[in-house]
Amino acid sequence: MDDKKRCETDILYLDEDQMIEAGVLDAGRCVDVMEETMGLLSDGDCLMGGPNHDAHGLMLFFPKESPIPGFPLNDSADRRFIAMPAYLGGRFHKAGVKWYGSNGRNRSCGLPRSILMFMLNDVETGMPLAYMSANLLSAMRTGAMPGLAVRHLARPDSKVLTILGPGVIGKANFLAVMSQMKNIDTVLIKGSTPASKSAKSFVDFVKAHAPQVKDVRVCATMEEAIRPADIVVEAISCKEGEWPEYKAEWFKPGVTFICTNAFNMDYRSIVDMRKVVDNLGMFVNYADEDDEGYDENGDREHTGCMGEDFVYMSRDGLLDLDTVDQIGDIVRGKKPGRKSDDEKILVSIEGIPIEDVAWGTECYENALKKGIGTKLKLWDQPKAL
Amino acid sequence: MDDKKRCETDILYLDEDQMIEAGVLDAGRCVDVMEETMGLLSDGDCLMGGPNHDAHGLMLFFPKESPIPGFPLNDSADRRFIAMPAYLGGRFHKAGVKWYGSNGRNRSCGLPRSILMFMLNDVETGMPLAYMSANLLSAMRTGAMPGLAVRHLARPDSKVLTILGPGVIGKANFLAVMSQMKNIDTVLIKGSTPASKSAKSFVDFVKAHAPQVKDVRVCATMEEAIRPADIVVEAISCKEGEWPEYKAEWFKPGVTFICTNAFNMDYRSIVDMRKVVDNLGMFVNYADEDDEGYDENGDREHTGCMGEDFVYMSRDGLLDLDTVDQIGDIVRGKKPGRKSDDEKILVSIEGIPIEDVAWGTECYENALKKGIGTKLKLWDQPKAL
Repeated sequence: MDDKKRCETDILYLDEDQMIEAGVLDAGRCVDVMEETMGLLSDGDCLMGGPNHDAHGLMLFFPKESPIPGFPLNDSADRRFIAMPAYLGGRFHKAGVKWYGSNGRNRSCGLPRSILMFMLNDVETGMPLAYMSANLLSAMRTGAMPGLAVRHLARPDSKVLTILGPGVIGKANFLAVMSQMKNIDTVLIKGSTPASKSAKSFVDFVKAHAPQVKDVRVCATMEEAIRPADIVVEAISCKEGEWPEYKAEWFKPGVTFICTNAFNMDYRSIVDMRKVVDNLGMFVNYADEDDEGYDENGDREHTGCMGEDFVYMSRDGLLDLDTVDQIGDIVRGKKPGRKSDDEKILVSIEGIPIEDVAWGTECYENALKKGIGTKLKLWDQPKAL
Repeated sequence: MDDKKRCETDILYLDEDQMIEAGVLDAGRCVDVMEETMGLLSDGDCLMGGPNHDAHGLMLFFPKESPIPGFPLNDSADRRFIAMPAYLGGRFHKAGVKWYGSNGRNRSCGLPRSILMFMLNDVETGMPLAYMSANLLSAMRTGAMPGLAVRHLARPDSKVLTILGPGVIGKANFLAVMSQMKNIDTVLIKGSTPASKSAKSFVDFVKAHAPQVKDVRVCATMEEAIRPADIVVEAISCKEGEWPEYKAEWFKPGVTFICTNAFNMDYRSIVDMRKVVDNLGMFVNYADEDDEGYDENGDREHTGCMGEDFVYMSRDGLLDLDTVDQIGDIVRGKKPGRKSDDEKILVSIEGIPIEDVAWGTECYENALKKGIGTKLKLWDQPKAL
């Protein structure tokens, strides 16, 4: 970029419809871009916050109660704000931050549970390049990671795909997995209840987006949904501590189980399964922050996060942390993909802020090419006081 | 706010000129709003990131060198990005994040060293309310804190004001201090060199903004600038480790010394001076992260940050951390202001993200009242995939 270009001070604003025009919903392309992104992570060509440059973000945690009238409380699902800054190198060479607030009660006024915005910046000057609606950006980049995981880890002949949690992220997961797996003919769905509206609407979504699927069904129980699956993708949003319980014995040989949210599963039962994560350092950070030891039965107090449990397992002598592989190392060929047809593979994905920089850059560059968006002037001349 | 209002999805964009129209440069008002803000901090009616809810922000630190071609390096003054999220209560009741990138080389293409943006959000829904140019917002709220400090701590008869570092923050500091101290008739300035252009332009700035000042001079040395001063305000930006050295003996009885940046001063020489900070927990966090012990002479390795040195002093048995007062506790009357005419008071200010939420809310509300700004539509209806 020449100096003149670099010193331009227009910011491109992209609303949600303009993000769609700019290609944010292209699930297959997003999987490709996430593959590039995980490769750059494996190369070390990126930077996040925190002492080890691998922080997920900085969160505002609301308290359960407060003596101060009107103080915001942790009293609904996903009540939080979080800022997720990152730099991503390679052809991206940009910095950015995703910033969002969530409140389970938003539905009551027709708003999504989380409202996300993303700012993209020139990494040399700090100049903001774009300010964009990031609900779809975030959903698609989150969904693309299971797509990338199945590309490298699922059995190519996988036929049965199970979706746990038929929400927005579940839909993005579905689109990304389907973009990679051409033999899927059965989709099983587990919502919060057998009569869940979102589970039913997910059935219509599958029919609309994947005519090759012959059989799409809502299941009554977790066990019914998981037992037949070649691929399970989990994205269940629930209140802290109210997460579901899975049994390791429900997973059939050859399964690829990809989780993005919280649940309980006795970790002594998963010692022999292969373990893969997006960013191991992040889970180590979580374990350092959260480690609360054991309950009265000698079981680990934990936070429902499988990748964090892998770290506790290593601390309890149940596994060597070096055996937990990172997707980026698999992308770069430093670690193998699936090793056998029978291998049971657990993949824990937390989300990494470099993914937003990658997909945000892609949408920004598409928008520039297509002339989409509103130019915002920052200043004619910066005022120096 | 009623439900209909809360669920509106227009974002107000304010460029730098519009921020000025909305009153961002009103230094006296900003000191009042910072007084409210520090009071709310003292009440606990706010929330930041981190385990103790007092994080300054999450920073991208660039390395000094990298084997990766094109990787951004820490090779100029202030090379960094930082995200600073916070919630502030009281009449503000809003969340927000400041996000900025800095690079000392920006001057070469006519850009400010730091380029800052601020996003203000409804704390209930997470909905973005405003996206605003924050260079002036940040400078003014930063400058206002020394204004608030002198309101409560400086001798009312203070006549000589010294400005160390005549940059943007120095100007904001000057405006805020002058809004509080009516007897200042002499202003001493110390720039990087006696012939520094910014020091000379600061003289014109003083003449233009404070006709009551009879004597305004650029000093050749730190000692010359500090010895006569009733009030010293420090805001010197320099490369890591290249900060100036001060001597405690230069400070006269009754001085109020307010610092916002980095320098060296032997902390064994300041044991008997009173110590005040904006947010003690933040300096404890810094000390926890940075503590590198002692050099070969038995002197503390330190980071140039005075508030952090206070924490090391307590760890070395030189002071009781309980004797370090917070400005908000002085505002609320929990701790006294100046105790005697001769008291030497050291004030270390780091900047707290709630200050951006406060001044951002004030500017946003002014803009709404005056009909200033560009409305950005986020969506007609959020797309659920």
